[in-house]
Amino acid sequence: MNFKGRDIVTIKDFKKEEIVKILDVAEEMLPIAHGKEKSNLLQGYIMASLFFEPSTRTRLSFEAAMKRLGGNVIGFAQPGTTSIQKGESLADTIRTAESYCDVIVIRHPKEGSARLAAEFAAVPIINGGDGAGRHPTQCLLDLFTIRREKGGIEGNKIALLGDLKYGRTVHSLAYALSLFKTEMVFIAPSELQMPKEVVEECRKNGAKLSIKNELDDVDGIDVLYVTRIQKERFPDPEEYEKVAGSYRIDMDILKNAKENMIIMHPLPRVNEISPAIDATKHAAYFRQTFNGVPVRMALLALILGVIE
Amino acid sequence: MNFKGRDIVTIKDFKKEEIVKILDVAEEMLPIAHGKEKSNLLQGYIMASLFFEPSTRTRLSFEAAMKRLGGNVIGFAQPGTTSIQKGESLADTIRTAESYCDVIVIRHPKEGSARLAAEFAAVPIINGGDGAGRHPTQCLLDLFTIRREKGGIEGNKIALLGDLKYGRTVHSLAYALSLFKTEMVFIAPSELQMPKEVVEECRKNGAKLSIKNELDDVDGIDVLYVTRIQKERFPDPEEYEKVAGSYRIDMDILKNAKENMIIMHPLPRVNEISPAIDATKHAAYFRQTFNGVPVRMALLALILGVIE
Amino acid sequence: MNFKGRDIVTIKDFKKEEIVKILDVAEEMLPIAHGKEKSNLLQGYIMASLFFEPSTRTRLSFEAAMKRLGGNVIGFAQPGTTSIQKGESLADTIRTAESYCDVIVIRHPKEGSARLAAEFAAVPIINGGDGAGRHPTQCLLDLFTIRREKGGIEGNKIALLGDLKYGRTVHSLAYALSLFKTEMVFIAPSELQMPKEVVEECRKNGAKLSIKNELDDVDGIDVLYVTRIQKERFPDPEEYEKVAGSYRIDMDILKNAKENMIIMHPLPRVNEISPAIDATKHAAYFRQTFNGVPVRMALLALILGVIE
Repeated sequence: MNFKGRDIVTIKDFKKEEIVKILDVAEEMLPIAHGKEKSNLLQGYIMASLFFEPSTRTRLSFEAAMKRLGGNVIGFAQPGTTSIQKGESLADTIRTAESYCDVIVIRHPKEGSARLAAEFAAVPIINGGDGAGRHPTQCLLDLFTIRREKGGIEGNKIALLGDLKYGRTVHSLAYALSLFKTEMVFIAPSELQMPKEVVEECRKNGAKLSIKNELDDVDGIDVLYVTRIQKERFPDPEEYEKVAGSYRIDMDILKNAKENMIIMHPLPRVNEISPAIDATKHAAYFRQTFNGVPVRMALLALILGVIE
Repeated sequence: MNFKGRDIVTIKDFKKEEIVKILDVAEEMLPIAHGKEKSNLLQGYIMASLFFEPSTRTRLSFEAAMKRLGGNVIGFAQPGTTSIQKGESLADTIRTAESYCDVIVIRHPKEGSARLAAEFAAVPIINGGDGAGRHPTQCLLDLFTIRREKGGIEGNKIALLGDLKYGRTVHSLAYALSLFKTEMVFIAPSELQMPKEVVEECRKNGAKLSIKNELDDVDGIDVLYVTRIQKERFPDPEEYEKVAGSYRIDMDILKNAKENMIIMHPLPRVNEISPAIDATKHAAYFRQTFNGVPVRMALLALILGVIE
Repeated sequence: MNFKGRDIVTIKDFKKEEIVKILDVAEEMLPIAHGKEKSNLLQGYIMASLFFEPSTRTRLSFEAAMKRLGGNVIGFAQPGTTSIQKGESLADTIRTAESYCDVIVIRHPKEGSARLAAEFAAVPIINGGDGAGRHPTQCLLDLFTIRREKGGIEGNKIALLGDLKYGRTVHSLAYALSLFKTEMVFIAPSELQMPKEVVEECRKNGAKLSIKNELDDVDGIDVLYVTRIQKERFPDPEEYEKVAGSYRIDMDILKNAKENMIIMHPLPRVNEISPAIDATKHAAYFRQTFNGVPVRMALLALILGVIE
């Protein structure tokens, strides 16, 4: 198992035992991520943070991860402050940026951008989300959250809810969960159900799956993973309102929930989860957001080769 | 007197002796703020700098304060680079950001935003200005400037000039000055005079006040605090020109000034102070700007609990 | 030879031996610039990076330079996030920023801005490009690249190609090369040829020059420095296409090239150099981009007086 210098474009770049290794290292990073211990592990290292589209969580948590470990960050939070508007190609921007850093995190609106960047760069590329494509560090922090909250990944019944068609988060997560012995339920309106390829791949990996169109109850569910249904997906606004409303998580839905069921969400949320849920022990989404820091610390430290 | 973990939403969050304490600590920070001494006091700490509207002074001086003390900064300088445009609530943005840091500085166009942030965040919130609301660190640096320039706050005759109605800076400053034994003169056109509540509160605190409509002379004044009168406040542009012109500080006005009278301004200035003043010993506004660094260093160190 | 505290507005601020000194120091910085050695040379120092117009290379490489040496950076990547839109003068913005830092790098769309900044600031100003004006650090990294790639500057035959009229890079470079014993060829369409003043100044310095309108061959050339011809320079788009096409560097042009001829470009490039060239040993432009880091490290360390 060797992480040094590797590109992280998709969660499929990792074998199961590599995922476990990253989560183990993330566990060790927790006191530093909480600011309770200081570290100079990445002192003198520079991460370039190239965000070609807006982001709060991914950008800030990668930067916090780097800085909590004593490292430095350069980059941009939007392409408008760069030479890209002068017509520079992505390949040239990447080959320029890599001159100034030890690792690049890229977020780009176009699917395949991270792969392209990895082909051109000699320094490791970490995909921070590329359009409808992949977002491997989100997947890792989701797995880390389940493991931390439930004491392990295996043996859980995990429902993925909402927009399973376009939500890049859930594709990677379903795949990753299929590597572990979990039971999954995909709950989405027919037009937004999990793509066939993902379902088949999960089945091939031996996952126990069921597919539903309605969130009638959460009986027996250990982890309820909620995603946002975007208005733009529906030609008819009324149709959207009806669908979105029927997937909204409120206090009512918790009546039949297992006592220790957790609710996750990649955030940002708009109306999918009632704020009343926030105060309940079920709400794991802000802890999930925090988990982005130790997971990204682990990944950076492994890829830069300062830990093995 | 305990500062650790406290939110700083308004200058009224402090008792007089706490203000004095902060200014004392700021005094000690001076050699570090000037870059003459190095410090690692805040090494490993992260400040999130969340600026929902543009700022030069407040943002850069907070960042300089943190960095001069060896600390780190993450954040954004405008909301366009974040998920806020996807419809995320301020409460969610704050709860996300606090996962990545030890203290949050927030600047927001809406009054009350800092208070709201403080309600939701577990980490300390420092208000970097919220609309027409409060701006407590500006007030502290103003007090620090008067103390440094005049050898103390008490005993001075201080004139506040310009837009006293909408200028958030002067409300906090008048209140704070009323805690010390100073004499104040409020000089503003009738339509932009100091709000009654502020005047009454100052009087209740025992302040010696006078209220004037014209800047006829600066005889006997120790500190002349100038603020910008904004064009937008006047329905009639001609009316604005007339008023703004009569409050403009130029060399003429200095004829009757005390030899050691200082002129302050929160900046940015447009036309309120003639550039000819810059070269005189009266001009204290650039030193005032610098004072934002030691004062913010003191506040960060106290709130993060690294000094007591 | 004393660099401490000096403003760097134009390459003409340096004597030849000072240029050589900077390149020598840059040479020593190479292992740190590559991230192979760690340094705390600039720990506790703050560079303000004031970019009034977009930039990728200049901004990121200055920031990388500062951070590789353990220093800190504050600033902005576009004026929209500052008080400038409230009508603040450049002089005031500069006097504010200098309160928070030890050195200022300024990039501004208006020629003369860096000179103005230097007049008002007490801290050293480094010009990061001011409109059609100067860009001294680009010139230094170009010289450094020639020296590294060719084993020295003197004795080379260097062709400057493309838009020699408006390209600020080539004016400074031609001047600087004229201080060394080189032979230069200026290749540009008549309407975009090198300005007379530059030609005369180079000749006065004893440079061996020739001026051509067409890139017919690269026979005998050691360094081919390519610049972008901008569409906006031509009233007629067809005229632009014809001209741009005839200056485009592709594999054909390399047939008669010296085996160790290098191709340089300040980047970003659009169509001036075929991507096929990238894989050849002639392509030096990405190494040139990297060289911005050690050169800027050298300059910062010298100007801040931490090395002599």
